[in-house]
Amino acid sequence: MESTVFEIQYALDTFYFLVCGALVMWMAAGFAMLESGLVRSKNTTEILTKNVALYAVACTMYMVCGYAIMYGGGTFLSGITGMGVEEGFEYEAAATYAPSADFFFQVVFVATAMSIVSGAVAERMKLWAFLIFAVVMTGFIYPMEGAWTWGEADVFGMYNLGDLGFSDFAGSGIVHMAGAAAALAGVLLLGARKGKYGPNGEIRAIPGANLPLATLGTFILWMGWFGFNGGSVLATASAESANDVAIVFMNTNAAAAGGGLAALILARLMFGKADLTMLLNGALAGLVTITAGPDTPTPLLATIFGAFGGLLVVVSIVTLDKLRIDDPVGAISVHGVCGLLGLLLVPVTNGDASFSGQIIGAITIFVWVFVTSLIVWSILKAVMGIRVSEEDEYEGVDYSECGMEAYPEFVSGKQ
Amino acid sequence: MESTVFEIQYALDTFYFLVCGALVMWMAAGFAMLESGLVRSKNTTEILTKNVALYAVACTMYMVCGYAIMYGGGTFLSGITGMGVEEGFEYEAAATYAPSADFFFQVVFVATAMSIVSGAVAERMKLWAFLIFAVVMTGFIYPMEGAWTWGEADVFGMYNLGDLGFSDFAGSGIVHMAGAAAALAGVLLLGARKGKYGPNGEIRAIPGANLPLATLGTFILWMGWFGFNGGSVLATASAESANDVAIVFMNTNAAAAGGGLAALILARLMFGKADLTMLLNGALAGLVTITAGPDTPTPLLATIFGAFGGLLVVVSIVTLDKLRIDDPVGAISVHGVCGLLGLLLVPVTNGDASFSGQIIGAITIFVWVFVTSLIVWSILKAVMGIRVSEEDEYEGVDYSECGMEAYPEFVSGKQ
Amino acid sequence: MESTVFEIQYALDTFYFLVCGALVMWMAAGFAMLESGLVRSKNTTEILTKNVALYAVACTMYMVCGYAIMYGGGTFLSGITGMGVEEGFEYEAAATYAPSADFFFQVVFVATAMSIVSGAVAERMKLWAFLIFAVVMTGFIYPMEGAWTWGEADVFGMYNLGDLGFSDFAGSGIVHMAGAAAALAGVLLLGARKGKYGPNGEIRAIPGANLPLATLGTFILWMGWFGFNGGSVLATASAESANDVAIVFMNTNAAAAGGGLAALILARLMFGKADLTMLLNGALAGLVTITAGPDTPTPLLATIFGAFGGLLVVVSIVTLDKLRIDDPVGAISVHGVCGLLGLLLVPVTNGDASFSGQIIGAITIFVWVFVTSLIVWSILKAVMGIRVSEEDEYEGVDYSECGMEAYPEFVSGKQ
Repeated sequence: MESTVFEIQYALDTFYFLVCGALVMWMAAGFAMLESGLVRSKNTTEILTKNVALYAVACTMYMVCGYAIMYGGGTFLSGITGMGVEEGFEYEAAATYAPSADFFFQVVFVATAMSIVSGAVAERMKLWAFLIFAVVMTGFIYPMEGAWTWGEADVFGMYNLGDLGFSDFAGSGIVHMAGAAAALAGVLLLGARKGKYGPNGEIRAIPGANLPLATLGTFILWMGWFGFNGGSVLATASAESANDVAIVFMNTNAAAAGGGLAALILARLMFGKADLTMLLNGALAGLVTITAGPDTPTPLLATIFGAFGGLLVVVSIVTLDKLRIDDPVGAISVHGVCGLLGLLLVPVTNGDASFSGQIIGAITIFVWVFVTSLIVWSILKAVMGIRVSEEDEYEGVDYSECGMEAYPEFVSGKQ
Repeated sequence: MESTVFEIQYALDTFYFLVCGALVMWMAAGFAMLESGLVRSKNTTEILTKNVALYAVACTMYMVCGYAIMYGGGTFLSGITGMGVEEGFEYEAAATYAPSADFFFQVVFVATAMSIVSGAVAERMKLWAFLIFAVVMTGFIYPMEGAWTWGEADVFGMYNLGDLGFSDFAGSGIVHMAGAAAALAGVLLLGARKGKYGPNGEIRAIPGANLPLATLGTFILWMGWFGFNGGSVLATASAESANDVAIVFMNTNAAAAGGGLAALILARLMFGKADLTMLLNGALAGLVTITAGPDTPTPLLATIFGAFGGLLVVVSIVTLDKLRIDDPVGAISVHGVCGLLGLLLVPVTNGDASFSGQIIGAITIFVWVFVTSLIVWSILKAVMGIRVSEEDEYEGVDYSECGMEAYPEFVSGKQ
Repeated sequence: MESTVFEIQYALDTFYFLVCGALVMWMAAGFAMLESGLVRSKNTTEILTKNVALYAVACTMYMVCGYAIMYGGGTFLSGITGMGVEEGFEYEAAATYAPSADFFFQVVFVATAMSIVSGAVAERMKLWAFLIFAVVMTGFIYPMEGAWTWGEADVFGMYNLGDLGFSDFAGSGIVHMAGAAAALAGVLLLGARKGKYGPNGEIRAIPGANLPLATLGTFILWMGWFGFNGGSVLATASAESANDVAIVFMNTNAAAAGGGLAALILARLMFGKADLTMLLNGALAGLVTITAGPDTPTPLLATIFGAFGGLLVVVSIVTLDKLRIDDPVGAISVHGVCGLLGLLLVPVTNGDASFSGQIIGAITIFVWVFVTSLIVWSILKAVMGIRVSEEDEYEGVDYSECGMEAYPEFVSGKQ
């Protein structure tokens, strides 16, 4: 009897992980739709290709070595041979759910971190350079900082972030800001799209080609985020954990709503119109903001925290444009700036986190990811180049990189 | 041991609520895709903005006061301070699942009711007037009638619908017909789109711009409906409730299939073609029809009930056009007319429901929502206007309301 | 107490079936998006209509007779009257989950098998002929071979596939190759699209009209496949079954990743470009390949098996074009050729399966489905014709079959 009851708990926790993991996997589709809706039609096939391929790369690299680096200790390939066969699996924690379910849940997180990059470097980066970067990012850069935080390893044997009061529930910093840091490094080396910034400081809006896709992508991400944050409770088969998971679902939804509304209203005040793309980015900003601590605020506070994110993302997008940092989909603002905000808001409602811990953790993650990414992007730039030719950029990377148009039958009116 | 077993039940019921709630949240994406596929391209950005924003408004208003009105008694703001923190939560029922999970499931229902409105008033209503209506609808009008039915309050202290034999399992009336009643009030005050009806009684078809989106939206709604109806069993952790949930999933699917096929065949007989939009509306009609009682019919009967809905929706759409009630997406027919049909079919298989109870319940809901909505729309009309200018309608509300086109690169051939 | 524990197991297994079933239902949307993205815009409304309608037909026919043929024994209509009402349900197995949940899970599988057909016969087949075929396929052809394999009946009383060592976990053969066999029969009778093959052996590429839709469809299928394979464990409420479900989720994801990457790289080597449609078909090929045995390989092997599928699908698509077998979406290669590959790979990691059993099983399924389909298509061809007129094909079947364009406002630049 007792063992049956334990087995049911084990089974429920496992199933919960798998459902949450499937929702996080679904976020890959969300990023693909969001980004393909926000770029121009001539660069759509390429961004779709990037999004599908980076997900596949992330899943493969994390299996080959990422998971072992992040959770399993030294040997890079230890994860491969045995994973999925009970006896060979060397996961140290007492298993209260299937080890493969844990891997599945973790592997879709890596893909999320990588998905953030593709939008920021859109419309001008070489496809294969990007995919090689994805190999390093998902197999090494992300797992290393993941090991310091969720894997509880010391940062280069120097200090332990958990002991310093660093807390990042589902990854505002570890996943989102990390993705944005890698993106920023790429964008700085890559430069802005041709025509984005005029010689006299003009900023030219380059509208996305397909806003229903961008909206769909946002809804997909919103839905997938229930798995992203809800699954990060890591258990649901007790009353306490079930309550936590429910609070996380509720607050995640509330923060997205608050972020969307705040951005919509601020954009109305600033630009005079109900700006759909700001509404979408505001909702995503709310989601990123709450991700560091969705378990402790009341839903009203979660809405307010989300609204802070929604306000900040509008300001950040405008500011980055003034700084001539060209991010076609606003990924650095949504995931980077609001990821940092999320980290800094945690101690407001969570007594286990400290502001100093949050700041040190944020700096640690940002510096590690930014510097290593800058090195990798620089090597790629030197060896094979990371930017397409001016002519290819003008014609659209769909033709040069993928050899096919995304909408071959529809006449393009302007670009 | 015994408490562990209880905790697992609690955890399973909670997780079931959260999964079902996530599916209902997903319906917001379904409405957004359906409606953006069925309007013209020049009004697409605006309808997307409406759909995302109304969802955010619904989530926020239901938290601020709606939930307290519907389930929690008098004090409007009681829900805010404590929700999500166990001790502060004042939900009266003996909790067999996390209170926050209940809130999450309920809040996505409100959004569904509101989503129904946006389609019917598409292509001519002012965005901000619509959003202010959404505030009142989701924070007050819907919660009031919800309190009378699911909240078990007496209707203005006069009569109790449950005692009269009113039964509406997942909301054919409470959610769908209610949304349609609010939409109808708006449409009557708003009038038809320019050019829809000619001076000599001609009815001009205005085709939707993007049928793959409309189809996607229907599939999303179909999927989300498993959560909508399946979650309304309100428990799954016993054999009896598990059987009920399974029957509800099976019958929901069967009714959608029956509705789609019936509408497809009837449209073929009436118009000579396999009319995709009628097929889609037929499937949705089947879903709305079964929603009032998906737990009692056999799957064959569920298919037949769905088919009744599918036939009725075709007739209703044609009839409303003859009455010059202009509903661009057929929302009043799908959710209102078939919502009523669903209510009236319940007593056929459910002995606990009576025809008189269903009729009184339907009238109560319809009158309440229609009259209060008419008042709110009228005030909005007087104060700020609810219809865009003729010029803006001609140019498309995307430009005047949102300042951006949905498909800026694609040449529009006709309108 | 003991009965409460049993009830929780029953409830968890039931809920797991329903969640997995909802994910498989979602695959219907995936096929609709994939196929509508890969055909030309003038044939889009029709393929959407087909996809929604075939799903509705499948659900209805499987209820009317398919389920009874496959699992319930002789009487065709036995399933109808009682299903969903406990006492009337004649399912023989000791129920460890709700019978209705089993039906729900099985019925969405039938729809998947049928969805495979619509893509291969796209752009030239008569809509109503297709739907009549769907009636026979989902009500008879598929349930018969399903009865021999998962229903454990003898093949025409002659031999039992299970005894011969045939193993097909979730249906690489039973569902996917079966769908492809029916499609192949249709394609052979139907002939190629006008203009696809030139008089001197030229093969003309006919690009799909909307690649974001095709990508979305692939992601939807990828996600739905977790339910397709994961649900085929048929239980999750014990530690052993929970481990199996987790392994299946992990391996399904890994195989898709491997298939996508292998196809992307091979296509790059063969055509010089990062071919998005090959990447998508590669991921789907990986999924089909692993479907016959996702429970036994390590994730590394699953990735490799998926990669075999990804390589094979590229070669197969090119080969079929050389043979002038015109399959607009590559369905026969993805589901047929890789379905066979999947069957043949099972014995590599699963000792309960034998190569001879896999081969005999594959031949049995293929011959049965191909021959019966050929007969049905032939009768349909003789009675009502299966191919639209040359003029209708030139103008697009959207107008002739459905009377409406999918994108009426967008000027079509080329066809």
